[in-house]
Amino acid sequence: MNAGIKVFAPATVANVACGFDILGFALEKPGDEIIAKFSNTPGITITKITGAKGKLPYEIEKNTAGFAAQSVLNHLGDKSTGISLEIHKKMPFGSGLGSSAASAVAGAMAVNELLKRPLTKRELLPFAVLGEQIADGAYHADNVAPSLLGGIIFIRNNKELDVHRLPLPKGLYATVVYPHVKILTKDAREVLSPNTTLQKCIEQNGNLGGLIVGLYNSDLDLISRSLQDVIIEPQRAQLIPHFQEIKESCLKAGALGCSISGAGPSIFALSPNSLKAEQVAVEMERIFTDNKIKNQVFISQINQEGAIKL
Amino acid sequence: MNAGIKVFAPATVANVACGFDILGFALEKPGDEIIAKFSNTPGITITKITGAKGKLPYEIEKNTAGFAAQSVLNHLGDKSTGISLEIHKKMPFGSGLGSSAASAVAGAMAVNELLKRPLTKRELLPFAVLGEQIADGAYHADNVAPSLLGGIIFIRNNKELDVHRLPLPKGLYATVVYPHVKILTKDAREVLSPNTTLQKCIEQNGNLGGLIVGLYNSDLDLISRSLQDVIIEPQRAQLIPHFQEIKESCLKAGALGCSISGAGPSIFALSPNSLKAEQVAVEMERIFTDNKIKNQVFISQINQEGAIKL
Repeated sequence: MNAGIKVFAPATVANVACGFDILGFALEKPGDEIIAKFSNTPGITITKITGAKGKLPYEIEKNTAGFAAQSVLNHLGDKSTGISLEIHKKMPFGSGLGSSAASAVAGAMAVNELLKRPLTKRELLPFAVLGEQIADGAYHADNVAPSLLGGIIFIRNNKELDVHRLPLPKGLYATVVYPHVKILTKDAREVLSPNTTLQKCIEQNGNLGGLIVGLYNSDLDLISRSLQDVIIEPQRAQLIPHFQEIKESCLKAGALGCSISGAGPSIFALSPNSLKAEQVAVEMERIFTDNKIKNQVFISQINQEGAIKL
Repeated sequence: MNAGIKVFAPATVANVACGFDILGFALEKPGDEIIAKFSNTPGITITKITGAKGKLPYEIEKNTAGFAAQSVLNHLGDKSTGISLEIHKKMPFGSGLGSSAASAVAGAMAVNELLKRPLTKRELLPFAVLGEQIADGAYHADNVAPSLLGGIIFIRNNKELDVHRLPLPKGLYATVVYPHVKILTKDAREVLSPNTTLQKCIEQNGNLGGLIVGLYNSDLDLISRSLQDVIIEPQRAQLIPHFQEIKESCLKAGALGCSISGAGPSIFALSPNSLKAEQVAVEMERIFTDNKIKNQVFISQINQEGAIKL
């Protein structure tokens, strides 16, 4: 009767070069798993956390997954129901791969699935965003929305959660490297100037528009020309050792584009097929390893499913 | 034998709220006409200009149509051919409706048509842009490209003329009012700060992306939410009397969006059908007329043809 259910929410790449705060896509792996069971204690209880090296709190109000789960339960008006969560972190923290977003999405999904899906995935979005806000401080859907819904997601407006899934050309592959160096999202935000020039804003606008048109028209050349970040990357690249060398090597190896994943330190590249994505992976790994920086490389199609019940 | 040919190039609305310098669409009317004939004088000669109240120069290097025409002729390597142009301005100057762009496009088209179309329309684009540069000083295609090619045009990068035509939902209508007040493009540029905030840049990015997604998906609500300019309009609106009142009245009358056309003083609105476009026209005319400002109103579907041989 109380076998529980298990959900998976994937890692994500936010910003995607030209879409700071408003673009993100989902990877097939890594991601977080949560097991939810009914319990006799009303509300959400976290009974187990693995893979977090003691860094995640068990208090619901401080835990992204717990808070998202509790928000869903509150919304459903179910005060007597008790649900216990086991959180299995299976992806790195502070990597720029949307770790806290994946947890928040898994928390919201787990409650909804255990209660036999009273809400659609789309309806879960605000609760998952609330959960992630605990970690990030910002009400942003650029990691949460792709982790939940899958695909490549464009967000016209974060406050309004005006979220749109974009079409994907066949065969597009992502390669992501996570070098084991530390950048906190907070620090990555602090390095950014609150101002920019009108000229750069127009260029960034042009690249964002170009990427969207390229995705709708399956125009890989246009996608490649558009995967440029003239505002954020030049400010943050200094935080990531060997960024320029890796970017150049990835482009030479056939990537359509290469930039910082989220707030870094992970670096992503998009490639037109799996072969190129693998060549790009070789370059990423080689450069960090040559420089004695531990790293993990992930090769993945864009994940079209988003979070799932396993 | 020397009957000559006549071409028409339409007026255009550039910027389109969220696409400063990188978006524009073509109107069905007004526009400029040019008649081209072979002449015995090698190169381009301007023999007649009407509708310009003596304001346009006959010197080829100073005339947008003449310079565009000469550029096409130079490119074709035809040094002995002589072509005479009659330029009939049939649209207002300095109105924000792309008057100089229409002339440049008509000049380039006229030569190409008279020579039996050695170049495609797309190939004429750089020459027409060069022509318009004489009037505007900037190498911008946001008026020239839609006047030449028709439709709604997105320009990823003006320098590279990376130009893309966007799809249009059925039934979309434009209403444009030209109030007889003077704003020079140069002044309209000078009022703009060369800087902006990262936050506004992200919002503008979101709206541009939203408009493009809305056009691809024929999502009129999304188009409406996206037709907002958080950077340029707030700076330029002060130059146009009664702008806010007109904008509010147009939106109340059912427009999807309303903003400044190009550098102004014209104001455009987009509506979901001709009925709403006419109601919007009534509001525009009423407010300017009540305030004793002469004005012209144009109602038009988006022009899908661009410049044509008549």
